Amino acid sequence: MSERADTAEPRPDEEFDGNSVDQAESRHDEDDRLKPDFVSAVLDAVEDGDRERARDLVSPLHPADIADLLELTPSDRRGEVAAALGDLVGAEVLSELNDYVRDDLLDSLAPEQVAEFAAELDTDDAVAIIEDMEEADQQAVLEALDPEDRAAIESALAYPEESAGRLMQRDLVAVPEHMTVGQVIDYLRDNQDLTKDFWEIFVVDEAHKPIGTCQLSWLLTCPRPIAMADLMKREQTLIPVDMDQEEVALRFQKYALISAAVVDGNGRLVGMITVDDIVHIISEEAGEDILRLSGAGEGDINQPILMTVRTRLVWLIVNLGTAMIAASVVGLFESTIERLALLAALMGIVSGMGGNAGTQTLAVMVRAIATNQVTSSNTLRMIAREFRIAATNGTVLGTLIGIGSYLIYGQLGLSLVFAAAILINNMVAGLAGVLIPITLDRNNIDPAVSSAVFVTMMTDSLGFLTFLGLATIFLT
Amino acid sequence: MSERADTAEPRPDEEFDGNSVDQAESRHDEDDRLKPDFVSAVLDAVEDGDRERARDLVSPLHPADIADLLELTPSDRRGEVAAALGDLVGAEVLSELNDYVRDDLLDSLAPEQVAEFAAELDTDDAVAIIEDMEEADQQAVLEALDPEDRAAIESALAYPEESAGRLMQRDLVAVPEHMTVGQVIDYLRDNQDLTKDFWEIFVVDEAHKPIGTCQLSWLLTCPRPIAMADLMKREQTLIPVDMDQEEVALRFQKYALISAAVVDGNGRLVGMITVDDIVHIISEEAGEDILRLSGAGEGDINQPILMTVRTRLVWLIVNLGTAMIAASVVGLFESTIERLALLAALMGIVSGMGGNAGTQTLAVMVRAIATNQVTSSNTLRMIAREFRIAATNGTVLGTLIGIGSYLIYGQLGLSLVFAAAILINNMVAGLAGVLIPITLDRNNIDPAVSSAVFVTMMTDSLGFLTFLGLATIFLT
Repeated sequence: MSERADTAEPRPDEEFDGNSVDQAESRHDEDDRLKPDFVSAVLDAVEDGDRERARDLVSPLHPADIADLLELTPSDRRGEVAAALGDLVGAEVLSELNDYVRDDLLDSLAPEQVAEFAAELDTDDAVAIIEDMEEADQQAVLEALDPEDRAAIESALAYPEESAGRLMQRDLVAVPEHMTVGQVIDYLRDNQDLTKDFWEIFVVDEAHKPIGTCQLSWLLTCPRPIAMADLMKREQTLIPVDMDQEEVALRFQKYALISAAVVDGNGRLVGMITVDDIVHIISEEAGEDILRLSGAGEGDINQPILMTVRTRLVWLIVNLGTAMIAASVVGLFESTIERLALLAALMGIVSGMGGNAGTQTLAVMVRAIATNQVTSSNTLRMIAREFRIAATNGTVLGTLIGIGSYLIYGQLGLSLVFAAAILINNMVAGLAGVLIPITLDRNNIDPAVSSAVFVTMMTDSLGFLTFLGLATIFLT
Repeated sequence: MSERADTAEPRPDEEFDGNSVDQAESRHDEDDRLKPDFVSAVLDAVEDGDRERARDLVSPLHPADIADLLELTPSDRRGEVAAALGDLVGAEVLSELNDYVRDDLLDSLAPEQVAEFAAELDTDDAVAIIEDMEEADQQAVLEALDPEDRAAIESALAYPEESAGRLMQRDLVAVPEHMTVGQVIDYLRDNQDLTKDFWEIFVVDEAHKPIGTCQLSWLLTCPRPIAMADLMKREQTLIPVDMDQEEVALRFQKYALISAAVVDGNGRLVGMITVDDIVHIISEEAGEDILRLSGAGEGDINQPILMTVRTRLVWLIVNLGTAMIAASVVGLFESTIERLALLAALMGIVSGMGGNAGTQTLAVMVRAIATNQVTSSNTLRMIAREFRIAATNGTVLGTLIGIGSYLIYGQLGLSLVFAAAILINNMVAGLAGVLIPITLDRNNIDPAVSSAVFVTMMTDSLGFLTFLGLATIFLT
């Protein structure tokens, strides 16, 4: 995956919107998304059976844009469009496609065709295509591959999902430390079957353990007689082959890596991960917390609808449990509410404000934990910080609400109870919002997935309990 | 920012925890965070006035880890620790530091010292350090810089904040297309003042407009006589100098770029952006939606507490408005509630389940919009998709809750009203969750910031209205 984007020149035979000015420009909107006009033009051409026109329109596109085009095509027309585009939907397009859209397309292909695609790609991209297939289909594809590709892919598949072993590619350049710059350049020129896409050269010892890394720019700016041992950087971030991809992404980010050596349990170099394969993961991992926190699962808009329904339902049913607990707290005060129905209208403000404050703290903590910013060194400080914020916000909101409700209802007792409940529930929210994710994380439970249920339960139940409890004691 | 991570060898003079086994390993926990023991050892050494011991402990660390160490240090001790570490807190450490922590440290330095740091860095990192300083301090630092550095930084500061112009570095390698591979290599070897950190060479025409890009690996694997014109890739993603950094990050991600040429309004090459400066932005942009959606602002745990309080309070007060609207809806039904106080306990389940379902849809839409997956081509399909999900979930939950409440309370009417309200509010939630962010986005309002308020208002108010309204009609 190292192609450059297409800003290809306009071609004379294109006129999808009837004017002949710069067509390349007019394919994309200002956000670099394919324009609806362009997508419709392609779909219309396919519908009219005018394959040539469809191909002419699409051929200047970058593979990533062809993948976007297929994703923007309604799912029941994707097979037809892909068929019309023929070899324009190549291995690179497949590797750029959304997982669900790709699986859908692959289902219609024979194993030999999938194998052809896989053979064209780097190991990591081929694995990404094959790993989600069903066992039998996967086997059929593997059998159709030539033995060398097959061995590479099979050994990648032997590593756990989402591990460095699946992300890495095997094609890399490794040299011994005694070679000179000139020798390395000659070696690269003479061995035309080496990969053409690499950014650093790994220097290894006799046991094939990495002992240093050399950026290509250093190689190019140095005289030929310099030894690699004198040029390479000895400090390096080595990635264990079984490291989780989220950890790999954090290392790339923290140390600003372009590529990194992957080593097996014995410290031997077995592959290389490059940053272009990591940027998707960085974005996914950072973006998925919002989806987890809200119980939307992967949140993939291309996921089959029944899978989405199931994921979201599970979450809603869990939350139904917490809502029932909160309701039963309210139920304890039915006689109070019968006497003062106004409380029923106001209690939602107490629980709601607590819920909002809790969600704020929770979002901050979930991000801080995900980015490795929380350790025992600063946990106490973070709890103290959130406590002070909660106390300040609770005091301001309680005062506002107390005064406001006194102006509206003119009942001093009610306003004091209201203000006190708001203050207390804000403190509950702040403490729950910081303590719950930290506790879950310490017990190796993903705080993004599980925290919200507990925090909401606390802010709802304790909000009702405080407000209705105080009201029962002081007002009725 | 292209240093490699430190896995430096243990040094004999280190024994921060009293045992002498592999100290380098024991500085980091399994998540690559600095261990609390190690942090305490450094802080203790500084407190004891034992600078040498503190420096010995810290010196094997990568600049990114030294930055982490300072962030983990309580804020009132940071100045003291930084002073003790002396030149170990260099320009690279500063550029890795959290903005707030850095500003804090910089405040204690003289402009000449800041200028010294800035001069050591690439333009983009120097700009990152200087851009947040106050006008007068900034001016003092610029005056202390030598004219060339100053001109480079001033011209970067002339571009809007968070634009490509601020991100780019000016040091790059550009060659004319008629040069051969051999000539380029000789040029690189002969010009030792060229940058040593680059991954691609830009090929430009006489007007200095980029016409192609060449990966260094292609240069190294080709014979010397080949012309750059025949080796370079002509399709390239050019970044306009005023492009927003979020857009830049999306291009790098979509087209798997390692570096990209930045061009001015006339299409001339003015700088280069490399992926290592982009990964932080990709992560930030993807991670900030969760913070925006919950109203936690930047969510930076190092932000001064009063700034945090203000940001969160504004959000809470806006939400107080929506909570009051919902409360006033409940207020309309006070007499119903007086007659049937059970409704007060159950109504929170209706609004809560709607709120959860709405948040799920919202989270999915906010991510899809942020990643440019939503265009006019698929908007209708996405609305239909969410509608079907909401209808399915609403039916399942309504049925469950209807049956459950019948078993508990034995009142058929109540159960039917309850089930109907749950179904209707789920549909409201689904539609609001998809329509509100799309509408905001079309009107160029960030859906992550503003959607939640509106969605909550809909699910709360309409949830109460449906449930209490139906109950008033059919039950009392």
